Amino acid sequence: MILSKVKIGFLGGGQLARMMILECHKLGLSPRVYCESNDDPAAQVCSNLVLGSLNDQVRLNQFLEEVDLLTFESEFAPKEILKNWLQNQQQTQKIFPSPSCMIALQNRDSQKTLLQENKISTADHVAIHSPEDLKQAWQKWKRPFVIKKNFGGYDGYGTYFIDSPKDLDNFLKTHSWSEQGYIAEKKIRFKRELAVIFARNHSGKFISLPLVETHQNSGKCDWVSGPLKHKKFPELEKKFQRLLQQMNYVGCLGVEIFDTGSELFVNELAPRVHNSGHYSQEALVENQFMLHIKSGLNLPLKPAQLYEKAFAMVNLIGSCTNDIAVPENLNGQLHLYGKKNNRSGRKMGHLNFTGSNRQVILRKALLERKKFKL
Amino acid sequence: MILSKVKIGFLGGGQLARMMILECHKLGLSPRVYCESNDDPAAQVCSNLVLGSLNDQVRLNQFLEEVDLLTFESEFAPKEILKNWLQNQQQTQKIFPSPSCMIALQNRDSQKTLLQENKISTADHVAIHSPEDLKQAWQKWKRPFVIKKNFGGYDGYGTYFIDSPKDLDNFLKTHSWSEQGYIAEKKIRFKRELAVIFARNHSGKFISLPLVETHQNSGKCDWVSGPLKHKKFPELEKKFQRLLQQMNYVGCLGVEIFDTGSELFVNELAPRVHNSGHYSQEALVENQFMLHIKSGLNLPLKPAQLYEKAFAMVNLIGSCTNDIAVPENLNGQLHLYGKKNNRSGRKMGHLNFTGSNRQVILRKALLERKKFKL
Repeated sequence: MILSKVKIGFLGGGQLARMMILECHKLGLSPRVYCESNDDPAAQVCSNLVLGSLNDQVRLNQFLEEVDLLTFESEFAPKEILKNWLQNQQQTQKIFPSPSCMIALQNRDSQKTLLQENKISTADHVAIHSPEDLKQAWQKWKRPFVIKKNFGGYDGYGTYFIDSPKDLDNFLKTHSWSEQGYIAEKKIRFKRELAVIFARNHSGKFISLPLVETHQNSGKCDWVSGPLKHKKFPELEKKFQRLLQQMNYVGCLGVEIFDTGSELFVNELAPRVHNSGHYSQEALVENQFMLHIKSGLNLPLKPAQLYEKAFAMVNLIGSCTNDIAVPENLNGQLHLYGKKNNRSGRKMGHLNFTGSNRQVILRKALLERKKFKL
Repeated sequence: MILSKVKIGFLGGGQLARMMILECHKLGLSPRVYCESNDDPAAQVCSNLVLGSLNDQVRLNQFLEEVDLLTFESEFAPKEILKNWLQNQQQTQKIFPSPSCMIALQNRDSQKTLLQENKISTADHVAIHSPEDLKQAWQKWKRPFVIKKNFGGYDGYGTYFIDSPKDLDNFLKTHSWSEQGYIAEKKIRFKRELAVIFARNHSGKFISLPLVETHQNSGKCDWVSGPLKHKKFPELEKKFQRLLQQMNYVGCLGVEIFDTGSELFVNELAPRVHNSGHYSQEALVENQFMLHIKSGLNLPLKPAQLYEKAFAMVNLIGSCTNDIAVPENLNGQLHLYGKKNNRSGRKMGHLNFTGSNRQVILRKALLERKKFKL
């Protein structure tokens, strides 16, 4: 394969595409980005840019036509276009993960059904398409549960906690019913949240990155620390290896997990690189962004190799509109996404640390973050 | 400092600028490249491009006007423009290394004189501006020596070995005499060649990367392996720390060294990142490209930290015009520069390896390179 001739297209211009494109540059590939503004994080690092909307089928088809490979930075490519691409073998072959994988995983109901069919533990759920469905769920479970948008939810957006009949009434009053609907799922009482990135290439080589602990703040990834062990993890790995084989999945897959102590329950899947894997830029010989690209190119994937014994990642999330200044005596490895405007809740960058002790390194990372005026 | 607002300009569009720009992207800076073609390695990784020649003073002044910081990928910026910039304090402040450092180091004669003044061992030399000067050197030394172009030589280009009167005659017949002239220097009988990268920021923080062994092929870097120790190295480090302080040097400096066994002689200096430092991308927590940028931004520089005990780098140098294909079972970390055309002698990319044993890792790297059809 002549890497310099491979044109690889990215749908979406955020930080995930940005960091994948930086890995493409290492390999001398010809990356191309499809996004809405030339100020987008990915657009800034790519000399080959197509401006357009994800709803513009004509432009998207043309973009696909002009690349050798196409991948996603988000699971929310419109289902209509994925379905169209699925009907054309030549188009489908260029796309990773495949349109059928994207369709199966972009929808919470089908994602959870897939997990259940593959005997992967996850909270019980029901699809909700009307107020009546929702009331029935409440009647049936008689305990707190969570409502999630079936399509388009992320980072806590589109997630609603129902702890009382009052919460239920509130939800019903304030939400309309789109065709995509919602799911309701039982709350899992977990001790901590974990995550893992799996990667699989076209030849079927499957690798697992280290298991990590993740901490969320208002539903958004706040910090990550690892590596961790859990006695149930090897079993989970095997099940995912089988599932990805069966789906002929290509690329990275982010898996969010609830750890109850004795059991692991899968919370959500993201068919892409994932915030919980950003630590890999400094902690692993090959990071998740490179692994995603190599999976698509069908290059060999080696077992994940840690440079040091432990690592930590802390997100830099805006809490006001001030520009983010770099503190005077900066430690750790800083990654900023080039976003022009800070605003509350916006992921602006992250800091990576490696070291010999997990607790020490996490503490160091959290202290370092305090130096930033976010 | 608000990194996203810092516009940093690069003079030159080759692989060194490319790899520095990739580090700028990590920090969310706004890099800008001044080069001759939008196919240039650096132009491909930067959305902000100015096409122009290094001899176009008007355009270069405009480029400098529009950035906050400016740095070089090559020491061969025309002396005229450097001199002009030197006369304007506001312009000078933006540039690293400073125009005066660049002028002192881009010329072999003044570079060697500087070394001698600072009691840094280097081969005896004389400046050569006419055939008579050259004949006098031969008369005086009566032993083999080396002629180097005073300005513009690199990778073995512009270097001529004079082992006999016949070589001298040949040289005189085939070379014209520009104003810049040549230097002649005594040949050092060395056991092996070494190299090191030093970095210094505006505040005067000086750090030294590991000492490495380098192997040249036809005057061009072929492989690098490290880290090494040498009993004379700490003394050399101290002398360079003093010299860079005295010059108020900012950025990375590449130092090529002859190791005679008992002594270290400095061969050449390059006021920039250097091929002998490419290993640092995977071997060090902070690589030379990032260190150069951080020096210019006056961010803190930490002592170099190795991820593993040993490392090796092998260059991928073209030997024909075929496109370079990636071998099927690739090992190590591949870096390709996106050069559109392979040709004999052209640096197309490199491979980095890290591991626990220097010899083993170098062997592995050299074997891996054999898989490439260069």
